[in-house]
Amino acid sequence: MKFGGTSVATTDKIKQVCQLILRQKEQYDDLVVVVSAMGKTTDKLLAMAYEVSTRPVAREVDVLLSSGELISASLLALHLNDLGCSAESFTGFQAGFRTSGSHRKSKIEDLNPTLIETALKRGEIAVVAGFQGMNKDGDITTLGRGGSDTSAVALAAKLGAKCEIYTDVDGIYSVDPRIRPQAKKIDRINYEEVVEMAHQGARVIEARSVELAAKYQVPLYIALNTGEVEGTYVANFTEQTGERKMEDFKLTNVSAIENILLVSIQGLPNLSFESSKCFTELAAAGVNVDILNQVILDRDNSAFSFTSDMDSKPEIIEVLDRMKLEYTYVENLNKVSIIGSAMRNQVGVAAKAFNVFIEQNIPFYMVSTSDISISYVVKAEDKNTIINALADAFGL
Amino acid sequence: MKFGGTSVATTDKIKQVCQLILRQKEQYDDLVVVVSAMGKTTDKLLAMAYEVSTRPVAREVDVLLSSGELISASLLALHLNDLGCSAESFTGFQAGFRTSGSHRKSKIEDLNPTLIETALKRGEIAVVAGFQGMNKDGDITTLGRGGSDTSAVALAAKLGAKCEIYTDVDGIYSVDPRIRPQAKKIDRINYEEVVEMAHQGARVIEARSVELAAKYQVPLYIALNTGEVEGTYVANFTEQTGERKMEDFKLTNVSAIENILLVSIQGLPNLSFESSKCFTELAAAGVNVDILNQVILDRDNSAFSFTSDMDSKPEIIEVLDRMKLEYTYVENLNKVSIIGSAMRNQVGVAAKAFNVFIEQNIPFYMVSTSDISISYVVKAEDKNTIINALADAFGL
Repeated sequence: MKFGGTSVATTDKIKQVCQLILRQKEQYDDLVVVVSAMGKTTDKLLAMAYEVSTRPVAREVDVLLSSGELISASLLALHLNDLGCSAESFTGFQAGFRTSGSHRKSKIEDLNPTLIETALKRGEIAVVAGFQGMNKDGDITTLGRGGSDTSAVALAAKLGAKCEIYTDVDGIYSVDPRIRPQAKKIDRINYEEVVEMAHQGARVIEARSVELAAKYQVPLYIALNTGEVEGTYVANFTEQTGERKMEDFKLTNVSAIENILLVSIQGLPNLSFESSKCFTELAAAGVNVDILNQVILDRDNSAFSFTSDMDSKPEIIEVLDRMKLEYTYVENLNKVSIIGSAMRNQVGVAAKAFNVFIEQNIPFYMVSTSDISISYVVKAEDKNTIINALADAFGL
Repeated sequence: MKFGGTSVATTDKIKQVCQLILRQKEQYDDLVVVVSAMGKTTDKLLAMAYEVSTRPVAREVDVLLSSGELISASLLALHLNDLGCSAESFTGFQAGFRTSGSHRKSKIEDLNPTLIETALKRGEIAVVAGFQGMNKDGDITTLGRGGSDTSAVALAAKLGAKCEIYTDVDGIYSVDPRIRPQAKKIDRINYEEVVEMAHQGARVIEARSVELAAKYQVPLYIALNTGEVEGTYVANFTEQTGERKMEDFKLTNVSAIENILLVSIQGLPNLSFESSKCFTELAAAGVNVDILNQVILDRDNSAFSFTSDMDSKPEIIEVLDRMKLEYTYVENLNKVSIIGSAMRNQVGVAAKAFNVFIEQNIPFYMVSTSDISISYVVKAEDKNTIINALADAFGL
């Protein structure tokens, strides 16, 4: 069971999730709970780091941030003991997380949960500080975005367990319910679909932890932290095993990413090194290029268009000006994506989607397709209309 | 260098002590800094523990409290780096503290500061989270009262260093300056005298860490955390080596402990087991008996008097009532002690002190002598008068 920061934001909320843990303990012999830091703790600690440092050293920020999960994990274990349920808390290091890579965004290199297994054998509930581990130099590191989810999935993989991720939404929806109130909660969904949704802007869970779950075939369950409503199961569901019905094989989700910058570069000679040099320079400047399209304009010249996030605008302009390239850009666009593994087996999804744009008279700036998704770059004001129209067309 | 909670209570105070660390770094090649949790952090964390638990489990409280020193240590290291001075923070476990004994009051079993030594060789300032370590089961433990001082002294002993303890007073005084404004700061004082002072109520440093310093002959320096005034050196000073002058061999200190309960038990048969049983029962009830006097009343009966702290009153009454003993008590007394290793070599100290009580017409309830101290139990209202009179008589 994994609980995020909002689920353990106060001591009262910690008491609430302990009730859910107790209910699950009646069902399962062995229970491991992974927690994030309480509410805004991480932000407060980071603010303190900036009070004493203009450019905080990543190694020390990791030590500082790691204290947050120690507090939530020990408070949770304290309350479980108070309820008569033996529980022990563990730091990332104690739980056996060996990490590698940069501070603040390290990767799990290996996991040896010996102390956890011993605690489980003694009948304890193990409460683990998520988001953290120790590298081979003996330094504390943190796992970066989605780190606690990744901690939970990794532990589940190693312990042969399933992983329940409790959050402040009650599952995965076909469309963001704030945009489409009649959106349906998805009961069962495949790993690859959730990964694609996460990449295309859905805010339920980081792609990283779902990719890890897929790799080790860890069954995921994403649900509300009260435990009162049925959530969403994530696994490899197949038609053959009957775990997923025929009618499930349609689109599963429409997601959107806001604040997109669209840049077009004109007048590059065909087959030149200019374009590859341009993207090498952009990467060196830390710019994340998302969709990339090339159009041959005539026999000699071609044009490029690419999208990035608005935050990267200064770096993009700096690189393109320095390279003396001719370019234009459009700001604050949105990328709307339709996602579903059904696309592989069904023809006409793209055609059906294009028709929706025509019917709604909504233009798109760019289109990009992947194995299980199609993404359209549209004006911000068209986002909600096209999301609902697509959802209508595909019955979401 | 060790800094307590008040010295690192805010990010501004952390910046201030970093200035002092930088000045010392100019003098010393290798510098290790030990810190307590910021200001009231430990109290706040404990309050949270009581929000989720009526009887907090000690193991979990240790995990919770250990987060406090991680925060202060990493913030200090962050600011040192910001000042251009390489520094790394270490948890108690990383610093090599292996502990044993109960949670919340564990002892240092062993210390292997390999990571600290490696960091020092790289030219780093090592910033260590005080007050904590890890036991052989891999559990985080805390060292109890005076824990961070003990961490600092232990590291100094292991690294062959001296130990500077920075606090919010500028050294050790012959008498508490709040009671005697003209009290002198002591430049040099012996370990045993500081230990006795700590036991007799002086609030500069816990006896435990000074006893450890004495055992490993770690030179101590106790000073104000601004580093702007000369503090007090604690070592084994002898007349022979000329480190301590002839005139130093007088009393070094008058200290006092408040809130003393004096209990007198009458009518116990001589040479009976009743008295020893009584003190066994008091110990079992967690009562700390301080001074203990026995008086033979007549051929058959004797009387006992003992002192304890006022907090133990309910337990004492419970035990004595249960044993059906006849007793009286006096509440809220004070114990005033004169301390100095000179007592060993000088006769007449006790007689001179008795005369002060007679001159001042101040009665005392009990008197107790040790190798290097004499303690008197007096009424609370007489405390300041007798402290000043004794200080006058002994030239403090």
